[in-house]
Amino acid sequence: MSNIDQLAAIVGPGNVITDSNDLAPYLVEERGLYHGAALAVVRPNSTAQVAEVVKLCASAGIPMVPQGGNTGLCGGAVPSEDGRAVVISTERLTRIRAVDPVDFTLTAEAGCILSNLQQAAAEADCLFPLSLGAEGSCRIGGNISTNAGGTNVLRYGNTRDLVLGLEVVLPDGQVWNGLKRLRKDNTGYALQHLFIGAEGTLGLITACVLKLFPRPREIATAFVALSDLEAALPLFARARTASGDSVTACELVPRIGLELGMRHVPGVRDPFESPHDWMLLLELSSSRPGGLRDALEEVLGQAFEDGLAVDAVIAESDAQRSDFWRIREAIPEAQKKEGGSIKHDVAVATSRVPEMIRRCTSAVEAAMPGIRVVPFGHLGDGNTHFNLTQPPDADKAAFLTRWEEMNRIVHDIVVEMEGSISAEHGIGRLKVDELVHYKPEIDLNLMARIKKAFDPNGLMNPGKILR
Amino acid sequence: MSNIDQLAAIVGPGNVITDSNDLAPYLVEERGLYHGAALAVVRPNSTAQVAEVVKLCASAGIPMVPQGGNTGLCGGAVPSEDGRAVVISTERLTRIRAVDPVDFTLTAEAGCILSNLQQAAAEADCLFPLSLGAEGSCRIGGNISTNAGGTNVLRYGNTRDLVLGLEVVLPDGQVWNGLKRLRKDNTGYALQHLFIGAEGTLGLITACVLKLFPRPREIATAFVALSDLEAALPLFARARTASGDSVTACELVPRIGLELGMRHVPGVRDPFESPHDWMLLLELSSSRPGGLRDALEEVLGQAFEDGLAVDAVIAESDAQRSDFWRIREAIPEAQKKEGGSIKHDVAVATSRVPEMIRRCTSAVEAAMPGIRVVPFGHLGDGNTHFNLTQPPDADKAAFLTRWEEMNRIVHDIVVEMEGSISAEHGIGRLKVDELVHYKPEIDLNLMARIKKAFDPNGLMNPGKILR
Repeated sequence: MSNIDQLAAIVGPGNVITDSNDLAPYLVEERGLYHGAALAVVRPNSTAQVAEVVKLCASAGIPMVPQGGNTGLCGGAVPSEDGRAVVISTERLTRIRAVDPVDFTLTAEAGCILSNLQQAAAEADCLFPLSLGAEGSCRIGGNISTNAGGTNVLRYGNTRDLVLGLEVVLPDGQVWNGLKRLRKDNTGYALQHLFIGAEGTLGLITACVLKLFPRPREIATAFVALSDLEAALPLFARARTASGDSVTACELVPRIGLELGMRHVPGVRDPFESPHDWMLLLELSSSRPGGLRDALEEVLGQAFEDGLAVDAVIAESDAQRSDFWRIREAIPEAQKKEGGSIKHDVAVATSRVPEMIRRCTSAVEAAMPGIRVVPFGHLGDGNTHFNLTQPPDADKAAFLTRWEEMNRIVHDIVVEMEGSISAEHGIGRLKVDELVHYKPEIDLNLMARIKKAFDPNGLMNPGKILR
Repeated sequence: MSNIDQLAAIVGPGNVITDSNDLAPYLVEERGLYHGAALAVVRPNSTAQVAEVVKLCASAGIPMVPQGGNTGLCGGAVPSEDGRAVVISTERLTRIRAVDPVDFTLTAEAGCILSNLQQAAAEADCLFPLSLGAEGSCRIGGNISTNAGGTNVLRYGNTRDLVLGLEVVLPDGQVWNGLKRLRKDNTGYALQHLFIGAEGTLGLITACVLKLFPRPREIATAFVALSDLEAALPLFARARTASGDSVTACELVPRIGLELGMRHVPGVRDPFESPHDWMLLLELSSSRPGGLRDALEEVLGQAFEDGLAVDAVIAESDAQRSDFWRIREAIPEAQKKEGGSIKHDVAVATSRVPEMIRRCTSAVEAAMPGIRVVPFGHLGDGNTHFNLTQPPDADKAAFLTRWEEMNRIVHDIVVEMEGSISAEHGIGRLKVDELVHYKPEIDLNLMARIKKAFDPNGLMNPGKILR
């Protein structure tokens, strides 16, 4: 029997895709950066089937590429162009096995779409706080494999912090059962944490136990005009304290981000009468109703007195709250419509975000006069999407040829500031060389030793994270 | 030069201890379970000195035992009896390098005593939430190496969740610099998480960046008499929700725990007029002042109506709050005074704690009539100290000979319930065989591969966690 026939014997012929038209959507990614090739896409519907598929591929020496919703931004789920690999899709692993509001846990298979998990939590009067742009199509196994971030990290942590247990098929096809609902377990090395963020290079996640939280019953949202960029820091720290650590979003919006949104995205309006250079979307939420809005008003009142804020609007309705979020969320879309953009997903210590933005802005403006810097995002956790929009009259293609040059300028500064060149998007294929450039040799060496210990034949998602 | 002379050349002669009287306190542990031996205790005062010491030992083939405050309960910091090892003490690595209330971070060396870090955080109007019995003498490097738990885990997580960055001297003497203040960093495998909880077997932690939180400004504490053990679960879940996830302690106290305390520990009093089988110490705290006590009263009022609680007292003063905590904290001391006790540090899913307690109680009572079961502790995170006090008239030594038999009974049930045989104390030497007995072969195998990848010569804290 051919390998394809053997795969079909495991998952059924209808779940081995080899037709080039049907394969196509599994071989490209979001931004169109890569066009891979594959022997087949295989769609197992149980952990046992995944294990059999992996065993077969391992014994036949076939590289394997785990794929969830294929919404990643670094090409981590796309096979290489050589066409030797099998893509193992988790899209049929979609059972929610349990929701337990007493334990505050949810047990689900890796192919569950994030928004479905959010919904299942809400139906049990709980919150699953992971929230990001692709939530309607990304799958939880991919979120875990990339340790996804999003807008709630400052209060609830990264995906890593939301995972209690994992089930993983190892590169040799053995099933590792770490599917525990335990809040405490000190019995040896943290194997689970190795799989989280490993982008499928150490094994294929098939199921997980997630932490739930009490569902918020009061939300208070403000759009704040800052006196300057630096004012964001004390304002955020005060809001954390005054709200009982209930700041669940603290997003930076620069003037140009708002302007591009107003130009290109319907429904984006300036909440203020006069223009402001730097604005903050500040959201508090709590399952304890009452008092949160008062706390927000007090923080803002004090911020006016101390000269940190010059204007602010508190959302009076869900509609107004949505308007504020639309301003923030419109930025990437507006940038796309404005022409070419060169992106950075960087992090530094929260207290150093303003310094990083100022230094990087000066450096890229010096290298390319007319370039428009649009730094926005998760100020509360130190993660800035330091995105660059082409000069108004420039040629898009010519602008984009300078991607690596701009990356080098920005990443040099970020690394010198002890920051991260990939805060929440991961490495995938996109940043493999960048990682080699910036990671100390000792880190790369330890990572290579771990990869070898788990996947000695290098068949599990080869070429991702590590060369 | 002898190895001792070479060590003295690195750290200074006064910091190489070889005299047997001076060595003694480094070679025993808390409970007196082990009496190790060592070539010397070495006390470096910088990361560079640690690195030199480790390099020397590595090249001379000398086993190394990292030691912090030596307060661990499983013998993880004690050398073996063969006397070949050098103990590397972190007690001179006591600098607090930075406290940043804007970042909510604290950077400290591994030898800092936990209570000093709590104090440094408080002086910056912040909270470092790790809190446990030994906080006046344990050192943060040991807390991190054992992923210490304590009483605040249900709100703030284990030590693992409180660490942003680490600096580690690897088994070959190289310094791994992961001393970052980043809340987001997705650039490869989670090396940091491997060192956390590895009990010094993969490297020696020399410094860390810790997360701080806003300092609580309101604390509301209740001692609650439950209608039965099962009532603890819905009461805890409701308190989480009603308080805006501000339950920072939820500790179970059984009748016998209170009675032993009243018998043996000064200041322990029953807060209730009539006796109750099961009680809960419930504490809410928040940096947002106002409303927390109201929330607590509402939860308790509802609990009376629904028959979950039969009596409750809310602390009206700091003194009364301390009285409540004294009841809880007196239990281990009271047990010691009552005679022999056989201990278990187990965890199951929070929702299964009552079932676990009932099943294990029946089983040990059947095996030893008259045995007194004293299950207490961190109900909110599923971690029970399932401790057994000898029958009143039994011989202590004879009782203690049945330690392993009782362990087997309890651990069999806990493992069958998908629980943990070491929730917060770790493995050390004490539970190495127990780990081999219960951990699946695949887990032990992966752990051994990691150990080999990091420490191929097996010189770093040999015999701990893994055989």
